[in-house]
Amino acid sequence: MQLLKERILKDGKVFPGNILKVDSFLNHQIDVDLLDRIGDEFYRRFADEGITKILTIEASGIGIACETARKFSVPVLFAKKTQTKNIAADVYTAKVESFTHGKVYDIIVSKEFLHKGERVLIIDDFLAKGQALIGLIELVRSAGAEVAGCGIVIEKGFQEGGELIRRSGVRLESLAIVDSMGDNGNIIFR
Amino acid sequence: MQLLKERILKDGKVFPGNILKVDSFLNHQIDVDLLDRIGDEFYRRFADEGITKILTIEASGIGIACETARKFSVPVLFAKKTQTKNIAADVYTAKVESFTHGKVYDIIVSKEFLHKGERVLIIDDFLAKGQALIGLIELVRSAGAEVAGCGIVIEKGFQEGGELIRRSGVRLESLAIVDSMGDNGNIIFR
Repeated sequence: MQLLKERILKDGKVFPGNILKVDSFLNHQIDVDLLDRIGDEFYRRFADEGITKILTIEASGIGIACETARKFSVPVLFAKKTQTKNIAADVYTAKVESFTHGKVYDIIVSKEFLHKGERVLIIDDFLAKGQALIGLIELVRSAGAEVAGCGIVIEKGFQEGGELIRRSGVRLESLAIVDSMGDNGNIIFR
Repeated sequence: MQLLKERILKDGKVFPGNILKVDSFLNHQIDVDLLDRIGDEFYRRFADEGITKILTIEASGIGIACETARKFSVPVLFAKKTQTKNIAADVYTAKVESFTHGKVYDIIVSKEFLHKGERVLIIDDFLAKGQALIGLIELVRSAGAEVAGCGIVIEKGFQEGGELIRRSGVRLESLAIVDSMGDNGNIIFR
């Protein structure tokens, strides 16, 4: 998605350790006009998939998921992160390892809102090692629902998440795939 | 807002301890068409306030803030909750006590995204004791920016937050004010 790539080049900031900060427009401050266009693009790519629900994970996926869901006229469901030891019986749960924060947490969704027969589009802001996305896919399948696809705003193409997901047969669409980031701040897209 | 009140009566669930669950349409599963109408209503009420930014707090405020910001054509900024001991120098911070979760946490926003001269509309899903809202107001004022108003989807009118904020001179608009909830699930609006 050209508009997004231009925005990443203009406002994204590269830090040592392959960190790409886009918090001026995507995941702290949010440019809602850009999100609206991102929603259009996801709709263009997944319009024929019979999507019945958008699933994302708190917090930075929520805005993107809402703007996308509006295009499909379907509800959003966002998974919650928890470190509570006692997981209630009325939720689906999966374990996710966060490399950014160096911990393992559970993600949960209420069983009330995910059902057999649904076709779910999973939306998130970033894909790197793919742990959060694999957890979300697990939640959908626990409910007997189907993963119709995954839509990612920025994929770090030099990490293994994208390949893992695609090899597993899930349709994955990333609007910008970053293949490398130089220490000089240089960003190369696939 | 009549549409919202009807939805609360239809899909809200009352639990002992004055708990009102609206997670089928507002803060777990999200009805984005309703959010779009909520955005229209906040725009109607605050259109003349010269709003330059919408501030909210993760996670359940984000969707509401995005749909509202779209009407104003301004960016969203969401405060992050953290329990990190070391707060960085480049953020504004405030302490918030959560009675729901029984703990105190810091909320932070990057100094980069909140400036003197801005007129900020603060948006959140719930207002009860008002601690989160007071913290958000503090963040805005730390930046030398102005609180143009607060827009709340559901205010628990029988708790003190609303009165605290209004008495302090801040313009507060709640789309539904619940004055009492009976153990029989009966909800009375102001």
